[in-house]
Amino acid sequence: MAAKKAAKKSGAKAGKSKKWVYFFGAGKAEGAGLSKDVLGGKGQGLHEMSRIGLPVPAGFTITIDACAEYYNLGRKFPSGMEAETLKNLEILEKATGKKLGDPADPLLVSVRSGAARSMPGMMETILNLGLNDRSVEGLAKKTGNPRFAYDAYRRFIQMYSTTAMGLSKEPMEEMLHDVKRRLGVKTDPEIPAEPLKKLCQEYKEFYKKNMKGQEFPQDPKEQLWGAIKAVFGSWEAEKAVTYRRVEKITDLKGTAVNVVQMVFGNKGETSGTGVCFTRDPNNGENTFYGDCLINAQGEDVVAGIRTPMKLIELEKRLPKAYKQLCQVRLTLEKHYKDMQDLEFTIEEEKLYMLQCRTGKRSPAATFRIATDLVKEKLISKADAVSRISSEDIERLFYPVIDPSAGKQKLAEARVATGINAVPGAACGQVVFTAADAEAWAAKGKKVILVRRETSPEDVGGMHAAQGILTATGGKTSHAAVVARGWGKCCVVGCEALNISGNSMQVAGKTVKEGDFLTLDGSAGEVYLGELPLKKPELPASYHTLMGWADELRTIKGRPNADTPDDAENAVKMGAEGIGLCRTEHMFFDTEERRLAIQEMIVAETLEARKKALAKLLPIQRDDFAGIFKAMNGKPVTIRLIDPPLHEFTPKDEAGVKKLSDITGLSTQAIWHRCEQLHESNPMLGHRGCRLCITYPEILDMQVTAIIQAAIQVAKQGVKVLPEIMIPLTMDRKELQILKDQAKAIADDLIRKAGSKVSYMIGTMIEIPRAALLADQIAGVAEFFSFGTNDLTQMTLGLSRDDAGRFLPAYVMSEKEGGKAIFRDDPFQSLDQSGVGQLVQMGIAKGRSVRKDLKVGICGEHGGEAKSVKFCVAAGMNYVSCSPYRVPIARLAAAQAAVEAKKK
Amino acid sequence: MAAKKAAKKSGAKAGKSKKWVYFFGAGKAEGAGLSKDVLGGKGQGLHEMSRIGLPVPAGFTITIDACAEYYNLGRKFPSGMEAETLKNLEILEKATGKKLGDPADPLLVSVRSGAARSMPGMMETILNLGLNDRSVEGLAKKTGNPRFAYDAYRRFIQMYSTTAMGLSKEPMEEMLHDVKRRLGVKTDPEIPAEPLKKLCQEYKEFYKKNMKGQEFPQDPKEQLWGAIKAVFGSWEAEKAVTYRRVEKITDLKGTAVNVVQMVFGNKGETSGTGVCFTRDPNNGENTFYGDCLINAQGEDVVAGIRTPMKLIELEKRLPKAYKQLCQVRLTLEKHYKDMQDLEFTIEEEKLYMLQCRTGKRSPAATFRIATDLVKEKLISKADAVSRISSEDIERLFYPVIDPSAGKQKLAEARVATGINAVPGAACGQVVFTAADAEAWAAKGKKVILVRRETSPEDVGGMHAAQGILTATGGKTSHAAVVARGWGKCCVVGCEALNISGNSMQVAGKTVKEGDFLTLDGSAGEVYLGELPLKKPELPASYHTLMGWADELRTIKGRPNADTPDDAENAVKMGAEGIGLCRTEHMFFDTEERRLAIQEMIVAETLEARKKALAKLLPIQRDDFAGIFKAMNGKPVTIRLIDPPLHEFTPKDEAGVKKLSDITGLSTQAIWHRCEQLHESNPMLGHRGCRLCITYPEILDMQVTAIIQAAIQVAKQGVKVLPEIMIPLTMDRKELQILKDQAKAIADDLIRKAGSKVSYMIGTMIEIPRAALLADQIAGVAEFFSFGTNDLTQMTLGLSRDDAGRFLPAYVMSEKEGGKAIFRDDPFQSLDQSGVGQLVQMGIAKGRSVRKDLKVGICGEHGGEAKSVKFCVAAGMNYVSCSPYRVPIARLAAAQAAVEAKKK
Repeated sequence: MAAKKAAKKSGAKAGKSKKWVYFFGAGKAEGAGLSKDVLGGKGQGLHEMSRIGLPVPAGFTITIDACAEYYNLGRKFPSGMEAETLKNLEILEKATGKKLGDPADPLLVSVRSGAARSMPGMMETILNLGLNDRSVEGLAKKTGNPRFAYDAYRRFIQMYSTTAMGLSKEPMEEMLHDVKRRLGVKTDPEIPAEPLKKLCQEYKEFYKKNMKGQEFPQDPKEQLWGAIKAVFGSWEAEKAVTYRRVEKITDLKGTAVNVVQMVFGNKGETSGTGVCFTRDPNNGENTFYGDCLINAQGEDVVAGIRTPMKLIELEKRLPKAYKQLCQVRLTLEKHYKDMQDLEFTIEEEKLYMLQCRTGKRSPAATFRIATDLVKEKLISKADAVSRISSEDIERLFYPVIDPSAGKQKLAEARVATGINAVPGAACGQVVFTAADAEAWAAKGKKVILVRRETSPEDVGGMHAAQGILTATGGKTSHAAVVARGWGKCCVVGCEALNISGNSMQVAGKTVKEGDFLTLDGSAGEVYLGELPLKKPELPASYHTLMGWADELRTIKGRPNADTPDDAENAVKMGAEGIGLCRTEHMFFDTEERRLAIQEMIVAETLEARKKALAKLLPIQRDDFAGIFKAMNGKPVTIRLIDPPLHEFTPKDEAGVKKLSDITGLSTQAIWHRCEQLHESNPMLGHRGCRLCITYPEILDMQVTAIIQAAIQVAKQGVKVLPEIMIPLTMDRKELQILKDQAKAIADDLIRKAGSKVSYMIGTMIEIPRAALLADQIAGVAEFFSFGTNDLTQMTLGLSRDDAGRFLPAYVMSEKEGGKAIFRDDPFQSLDQSGVGQLVQMGIAKGRSVRKDLKVGICGEHGGEAKSVKFCVAAGMNYVSCSPYRVPIARLAAAQAAVEAKKK
Repeated sequence: MAAKKAAKKSGAKAGKSKKWVYFFGAGKAEGAGLSKDVLGGKGQGLHEMSRIGLPVPAGFTITIDACAEYYNLGRKFPSGMEAETLKNLEILEKATGKKLGDPADPLLVSVRSGAARSMPGMMETILNLGLNDRSVEGLAKKTGNPRFAYDAYRRFIQMYSTTAMGLSKEPMEEMLHDVKRRLGVKTDPEIPAEPLKKLCQEYKEFYKKNMKGQEFPQDPKEQLWGAIKAVFGSWEAEKAVTYRRVEKITDLKGTAVNVVQMVFGNKGETSGTGVCFTRDPNNGENTFYGDCLINAQGEDVVAGIRTPMKLIELEKRLPKAYKQLCQVRLTLEKHYKDMQDLEFTIEEEKLYMLQCRTGKRSPAATFRIATDLVKEKLISKADAVSRISSEDIERLFYPVIDPSAGKQKLAEARVATGINAVPGAACGQVVFTAADAEAWAAKGKKVILVRRETSPEDVGGMHAAQGILTATGGKTSHAAVVARGWGKCCVVGCEALNISGNSMQVAGKTVKEGDFLTLDGSAGEVYLGELPLKKPELPASYHTLMGWADELRTIKGRPNADTPDDAENAVKMGAEGIGLCRTEHMFFDTEERRLAIQEMIVAETLEARKKALAKLLPIQRDDFAGIFKAMNGKPVTIRLIDPPLHEFTPKDEAGVKKLSDITGLSTQAIWHRCEQLHESNPMLGHRGCRLCITYPEILDMQVTAIIQAAIQVAKQGVKVLPEIMIPLTMDRKELQILKDQAKAIADDLIRKAGSKVSYMIGTMIEIPRAALLADQIAGVAEFFSFGTNDLTQMTLGLSRDDAGRFLPAYVMSEKEGGKAIFRDDPFQSLDQSGVGQLVQMGIAKGRSVRKDLKVGICGEHGGEAKSVKFCVAAGMNYVSCSPYRVPIARLAAAQAAVEAKKK
């Protein structure tokens, strides 16, 4: 019913004016200039090559619209399509001088799918269409090669039966196998003509038996309609639907059908076939790269039955065709201004181009090709920058498991799969506590830290480890976020682990402390044993291209850095300042520091708290001085203490005992205090600037440390630009109180020292209310930094530590078992419609009060390409992220600038 | 320096044109019509009474502006104020025919403070000013009463020395005491004239000694300036500053000064004094109510040395003055249209009115007086409704500790103070587990449930208890919120409790299970033992007034109700529908229900989960049927399951064992599953509609139960209007998926049953993103209910369970040790600037898509007056709250309607 209605409606709308079929080849290219959305990728390539005069076998393309309409009409050809197809077939027959089904010299065609985007192996193809019991004889005579003719017919019957009619493949394969067995031969080419002819007969009988008595179609036009329907039908075949869902392909409407004259590379020693790239797809070198086979068809190259020879061999074997192919290579690169992936066939010394598309390449090649093309003046620097994706950069940096290990070995070693939190690979000996990780690493051992989950107390051990593996948590759990900050390989949420004490059970095996484990953070795989790793080397072209990106972008990209070491590394990597220095990370480095902050926390009186803070002051001051020196003149944004205090408390008897010794408090009192600090929802609890509201002396100490360090370093002639950032602000007055307090301390220190150090005081905007009231808050804050990690948690009501249980269902497609509610994980790519609305509102309101308000973002999103582009469009001045993601931010910012210019 | 600058600036601004002093009495009322902000409360009353011709002693008022300017100028009188004061003094002297300091017949004045709002006992007063060594003799002669004259002089010297000059009170009291000791008398009136005269001499010597040789001022004008400065000064005295901060008085600028001719009630048997109310302030009855004393001064009535007589006695003793007083009562009530609190003095049969202000009254009197005034046609119904505050309603409902117990006994019994979460009082035997509470209550015992904190598993026990006491949590902790829903007395965050097992330590005492405890939820006090309680009785006037409120209001007030019992009670209380039925509360009622939901949670397969859900289906269906029947035709909004599943899991070995027996799962597996469900931030975790996204079968069961119940009840002729509400929506597609699923089930059931039941599907708006994208969401949702509890948590980044640690510092004033960042606790009164912005945005965006979108609020704010008014202004259709707060919502809605009409 629904289909009929749709048919009426659509028929009326589509009318007869719509063109369904476009001819190409033989000097024609009707579809020239049309997009992939009309002709499909393969079709567009064929039309375009025809248009620029390259040798392409003639044929015609039935459009993607026709396919879409076919489905609209309930699997019926749209009105006019059949007539157009027949007319184009006539033109093709004229152009080739052959007729479909001609008993003497038949025209043979291939019928191939071709969507707007490549879906490798997903869609159907039927070759040698046009053969029947009579024309196969004609072909045999014409070619003088009955074996060739019957082999072609055999293949056609097989493909048509299975692809177009849906018969099972196995019985027909089995029949072919039987022939070989009977003949005592191993490969298809060894079967002579007669058994092949007999096989064709058996195939047709099989067809009839399984098609309720229907004969195998002898009418080539009937064959053609069946093949076109088969190609259309493959669009909705289960595997294709699954593929599109997995790959998040939602914008395609169907597949085009290309009906192309068959050409044969298997017509003897003057024929051949090959696939090639116009440049080396592995390293990007400007050399002609590919494989070919003499006297073979396309699938033989792919199937790997015969070992193909290098393309260059062709120069000796078929020099004329090779020369022509080289010319084609140059023409296509000039035309497409990018490296192309080509398929060709040489039929009796005549070259035919069968396919042309932009070639896939390794990350290193991506950079090399982009920069080379600029040097060759084929593209601009902006074009080059726009062609790099953030994945290209990521893949360039991370070590990988050396594939030379062999697939078999890998499969055997694999024991579990978790969530691929931070890409790269790591290998080392298993330890189960952060303390062990530190101890073993100190002895020069490489370790993998395995934990149920990690907490800030583990940070030292996490840093010491080669890689981190946790049993719980998602991509934005503590382990994942911290590890990502360092670019350290990390697999989380590996629920198969059953950890107890110093060993764990996984996949029925026991892994003990000291056993070797290899992690693949890119795939989330866990391997037993020590697998070989490969380290990446940055190609020169990477630096060239990033330089161009830096010229193009309009906003700054600043790394997070928490220690003088981090800052020095950041400078080496070309940092333009530090966007986020998390002061609390300074408290975990050594036991002395940990104990001092713990002493502060358990203090029962203001005096005791001040005494403990006094111990922290010189530590923080020295750290800040180190950072300022490293950054020499570049701004450093320092966030005051942010996490809830219970993250710092000792978690075991030994820790409590030590703290008891230092403070003189009973262990019971300390446990009690730790318990008191427990929160139901620490994310929304006593943290951020709320700590400084209730314990003003913490702010006093931190501001003193920052300003004393600044004064001290400034005296040494270093330019210092501290930006004090107050986290978790929710109200103007709250910020005013803290700013006043900080200013009083800072100004007093500066005045007494006779220094000229200047500083700024700003705030994080990470609570929805702060964005809603940004006009009020900008009256106090001298800069804004959007903390979109927390802003996402609160705006969506999503705890990133807990979302692992249900967020996958929101992000995954239906076929993956999800609901596809979100296009992206909102913790990875900024939720532009929701959180983005608050960001835009916050910036607009803030600048309505303070015109030149400096605005940035700090958090995971600052290093994600789509989010960075949003930030540029929203008018931010800088983005801040993990050092290892700064290149991604720089690139995305440049791309945003290029896009903005185009508009 | 600063003061001088300010003086210049202010002097220039203030100029000489400003009028600082206003005269009243003797036929004048210069300040008539001026506000309390100019004249202060006392001054305004005096001017107003003068204007309408009531007998008031003449005098003048120095304005509040003068006081404010005095401080602006660094404690200097503003230019012109002194000249104006002297001019008004002249007028006063003319009016009274006496002169200040006249040795023969001196004019005496009182100098009294009077701010715009009453600050009882905070501000200073000086009486009998104008006496000196010579005029005291004149007064003695003129009155023929030297004792009276010297007593007046003695009092003046004492007040002036301590109040105006700041000398210590104790030595002067001691000197007075010495006189009495020497004379062998007990009370002041027993001291004859001569010793009083001698005491005056001693006082003056004391003054001189302590004032560096300065004599006690004999110049009455010097006395006057000193007294005025003393009154001005008292505004900034520490106790007054503290009082204003504690009472959150921030809008007052200073105090006025009233200089008034002294009248004396202590001039013999034809004189007297009294305080009275124009109606009975305890029950509101329209009778003249008050106390008086013959031959006494005002302070004698208050001090309680002599037992005052009832006002009616005055009719016999001084009939003329009494008659006049009755006339004054009628005049003032007609004039002010409200019950007044009066002070009067009769001097030799002549009545003087000294004060008149709106009288404080009991909650019962508030309703009685308001309704009586309407009946007397003095005010309109709208006026009456506007005069009631939500506290009046609250105080009407809650039981209290019977004050007859005596202050002493109360003080002895008090052992701790916590946070006053839900007002009222409760008394019972202590139990430490919810199970015990249920068991003991089943045996007819009254119990107080004491817990460290409560969880949903405790709900049964909480319901069974008389009152709830917790060691942790704030006003919006689980215990507080649940208890408030029932109007059950609750004290939370009582950190002094040290609970372990079946006893607790508090204030050095051990409280064991079974010991009696009394709670005062209004004050947050905890008492050992069984104190007598008083139950409230609702006066008829309450029902009258609430009826008027219902006529006036434009939006609905709907209670929350989770069970058929709740619904029946709600109907009895006049509910117009149910605004929030929390389906999960149905799971806690009995062990059978708890086990069924637990079975669902630990289920390892879809089948096992469905099996458990099948057990819950009839239970929920019966509950819904009961609720629908009770509500007969009124809408019922049913929220699908909301809390995270771990709230339902068993917490102890016994519970796990039982569940293991039922499910056949090992106890280890059950513990493991419970542990798996643990969340870092459950508030932002796997809850709300996220449960139905991951476990669609839960929604299936709940919708089936709702619709089957509706069909069943509708068959019995009952009109049913279920509104299915989906909680925690954050995205349009998420809601669409669940709505489609629910609709498919519901429509199928209705069709198969041949029923005509209709229903709506809407959503909570409780995540900031939902408000930001309300236009998208309204495309799916048929109604919105703003869940402002959660919306507040997320918009402010505040966990209500944890905020107890720091939110008090945000709400408390500086003097209380807080920072006064928020005016109100945002969980109690809606944060209008932040959360309110999202609410307004959500309504506007929602109605931009669905014009007639029904919008309500459910949560604590729906029962808080200011928030309800905001909701009315924001255009909501209804508010929903705890049944016990519905009257407050009804009243506030009526007041909002009245205010809107006025505008």
